[in-house]
Amino acid sequence: MAKDMTLLWCSGSVPCWRVMIALEEKNLQGYNQKLLSFEKMEHKSKEVLDINPRGQLPTFKHGDIIVNESYAACFYLESKFESQGTKLIPDSQTEQALMYQRMFEGLTFYEKLNAVIYYEWYVPEEERHDSALKRNKEALITELKLWEGYLQKVYSHLAGPSFTLADVVVFPTVATLFRFGLSAERYPKLGEYYNLLKERPSVKASWPPHWLENPKGQDTLKDI
Amino acid sequence: MAKDMTLLWCSGSVPCWRVMIALEEKNLQGYNQKLLSFEKMEHKSKEVLDINPRGQLPTFKHGDIIVNESYAACFYLESKFESQGTKLIPDSQTEQALMYQRMFEGLTFYEKLNAVIYYEWYVPEEERHDSALKRNKEALITELKLWEGYLQKVYSHLAGPSFTLADVVVFPTVATLFRFGLSAERYPKLGEYYNLLKERPSVKASWPPHWLENPKGQDTLKDI
Repeated sequence: MAKDMTLLWCSGSVPCWRVMIALEEKNLQGYNQKLLSFEKMEHKSKEVLDINPRGQLPTFKHGDIIVNESYAACFYLESKFESQGTKLIPDSQTEQALMYQRMFEGLTFYEKLNAVIYYEWYVPEEERHDSALKRNKEALITELKLWEGYLQKVYSHLAGPSFTLADVVVFPTVATLFRFGLSAERYPKLGEYYNLLKERPSVKASWPPHWLENPKGQDTLKDI
Repeated sequence: MAKDMTLLWCSGSVPCWRVMIALEEKNLQGYNQKLLSFEKMEHKSKEVLDINPRGQLPTFKHGDIIVNESYAACFYLESKFESQGTKLIPDSQTEQALMYQRMFEGLTFYEKLNAVIYYEWYVPEEERHDSALKRNKEALITELKLWEGYLQKVYSHLAGPSFTLADVVVFPTVATLFRFGLSAERYPKLGEYYNLLKERPSVKASWPPHWLENPKGQDTLKDI
């Protein structure tokens, strides 16, 4: 089934990882895939641009259907393969509402993380300000406290007892936080959530290869 | 039905408008609503914070269910009231895929617009750079050309012949572009799309009241 699917991706990309977890959860192994290098600017190669005019990864194709936005690909896969693999949208309207809410808050979470760990990448040297980076760090701390609080109110996953699309899209952000040195002592519920989900088969199967090669991450967030 | 719903909103907010269009399309008129003032910081009032810890608008409640993120509320309303009013997710997998793709590209579109029209609001005076604003304008132009191209390939709406969730979430961005002076001569397909959708009953019913009071907008984007 997955032979008519192609994923162009890069290692450690949160959006790419979302799609890879969704593919695993829907039992869509065996898709065509190509690991590209962000450093070598391969996301701007003709191969990518032919499918994705934004020159971004993931770039995802299923037959003639192109769905490059990571959230879009996750929704598409769940809709198209609804009865296959893990059911990623719960039947309960209450859980569904919470799932949608957390999914979209997850975009803010990801943005606040990026604004700290990739500040120098996004902002040209002559436009950088200590005051801006400090503000970004404070915003990330506020965000982390929100999520720490959310996890105190639910069972084990973001929208309740079962694994849903909210976990598919938010877990890669949480894993990246710990890769960049977040303290599980300071954020124990996030630490618990990370430890639970990192053992999930779909997550293990899609773990960023360069994190496996070099298990030690950065300590950018150790004081956050 | 809509008596058990409450929407706190402000006039001219793109995220608020999305939810209001969705409510109209699902025939959910008559909900409790309160127009708050962003200038008076009413989005940080206790009334909002009690429901929405982020202190943002829209803030939306249906019975005990809280769904504040605008995309989340639109998905929730379509799922909960699937057979009521306009069907906002098409059955065709191809249209659905395109709808999801455009919805999530719509977030980038909105972000690129904000980075230009609200640059001074987002960036403290001592951190502003002409080079940054120039780059933001170039990024918005690139984005506009992408959407102009997309609209050349579809019938009348963003995901095909029918009005879908993609239109619900992206139209308020397009309307804001024209409110801020975008040239329909330079972007004729966007202009056509704007003119078609602004006559739609759900859009007319939810048109920002301060735009009605003062029909002349700004010219911030006239040279874009």
